[in-house]
Amino acid sequence: MESITGRTRLFAVLGDPVAQVMAPAMMNRLFRERGVDAALIPVEVSPGDLAAVVEGLKRIGNLDGFLVTVPHKLAVCRHADRLSEAARLAGSVNAMRREADGSWSGDNFDGAGFVRGLLGAGHAIAGKRLTLVGAGGAGVAIAAAVLQAGASAVSVVDIDPARAEALAGRLGERWPGLARAASSPDPASDVVVNATPQGLREDDPLPFALDGLCAEAIVADIIMKPAQTRLLREAAARGLRTHPGLPMLNEQIPLYREFFRIP
Amino acid sequence: MESITGRTRLFAVLGDPVAQVMAPAMMNRLFRERGVDAALIPVEVSPGDLAAVVEGLKRIGNLDGFLVTVPHKLAVCRHADRLSEAARLAGSVNAMRREADGSWSGDNFDGAGFVRGLLGAGHAIAGKRLTLVGAGGAGVAIAAAVLQAGASAVSVVDIDPARAEALAGRLGERWPGLARAASSPDPASDVVVNATPQGLREDDPLPFALDGLCAEAIVADIIMKPAQTRLLREAAARGLRTHPGLPMLNEQIPLYREFFRIP
Repeated sequence: MESITGRTRLFAVLGDPVAQVMAPAMMNRLFRERGVDAALIPVEVSPGDLAAVVEGLKRIGNLDGFLVTVPHKLAVCRHADRLSEAARLAGSVNAMRREADGSWSGDNFDGAGFVRGLLGAGHAIAGKRLTLVGAGGAGVAIAAAVLQAGASAVSVVDIDPARAEALAGRLGERWPGLARAASSPDPASDVVVNATPQGLREDDPLPFALDGLCAEAIVADIIMKPAQTRLLREAAARGLRTHPGLPMLNEQIPLYREFFRIP
Repeated sequence: MESITGRTRLFAVLGDPVAQVMAPAMMNRLFRERGVDAALIPVEVSPGDLAAVVEGLKRIGNLDGFLVTVPHKLAVCRHADRLSEAARLAGSVNAMRREADGSWSGDNFDGAGFVRGLLGAGHAIAGKRLTLVGAGGAGVAIAAAVLQAGASAVSVVDIDPARAEALAGRLGERWPGLARAASSPDPASDVVVNATPQGLREDDPLPFALDGLCAEAIVADIIMKPAQTRLLREAAARGLRTHPGLPMLNEQIPLYREFFRIP
């Protein structure tokens, strides 16, 4: 987007907070590079206002779609007229678009983005054991995607044990015996993923203890800002391998582009 | 606005259509010049969706205000918690802002912008007779503002005679004897203003007949795009003086800046 005029098409990213999101910079660069007169704007919306804001955005004629981030990925599902398989499996949406008939479709590219990012960094997933910390909107999408990519076991940890049980149960229906709820990371994990918002702020507590992980474990974070969270710094200081949050978004940009039908 | 990030503050302009609006280009230039990380976006919304879209926008945490254009200036009033004197007098709002307590104030700068633009072009208003064609959102604001600026008479013409009568009646309460409804421009008018949307499209009919206007009359249009409407071209071809639409917006930019508290 060179400059916004009355003809500019709109996309949005909804979050709370929203100041940290990278999607506007990355998608607006894409629009510029491709000569598309469109802009992606940040939309800060609290959980209590999500329904009103989403229903308002859906009625804006020149708004073609929106991305969804913390903490709205689960709640936004009910505003879609249909869900992709990834979104249904995750029970979580991170992208919505208007179809030609005016209806809205929800999809979720968090899992695919995470898997592509991890593979792209040279780390295997097939046959590996993973622990997913945080069974929120991004966590459930990642858990489903790593199982689809051939992970041999997924442990789900959440501050709310019932939420971890529920996710493990849903995954178990599709991949019997491969998913279980746990109260702390599986010590035999090849990859431990932080999918909680802990780490957005420098003074956040660590999302899980690093003690007891095996020396070859990879500690992954999906937080993009800061790029190096305290979790990743402390893991590196212990000699563990780390995987940052940005690749998950980078790998989603071409998926968003296809989903939003950007030329 | 150099580039949009998660920290960018939002403003919007609501209209139907919205492709022709100049406010995004002008306000975004102002933000750039003043180093303010904000963007003004176009929002296309149909009358039936106005309530849902406005109530959604009002709940976006990083959206500080919005402008309103055709055909929503009257209907948007009910979404303001309070109205300025100009907005009350006109029964019409073209700018809304969020106050520190979360409530919303509506104001209308169309009238002040038009008056400043006409005076700035060297045309007098005090003691002059004006005809206002179009008693919609902008028309009512201009009618009130020219009377406030000392016009000696205002004729109101509208395709809906009842709407013209209603506006003339409201103006008459405040300025007894100076306003009347009419079916065509007062032949003794010093200034005849088009405040209808006729002329946005090249094949629109003229909003009023130019026959019978006196040779010294000024024909003014509030349409900004095209800059030279067919009305203005045909008036100039007859040797009448003309006044285009852009000064009304140009003169409003500093008023918007103050209203939106842009540094």
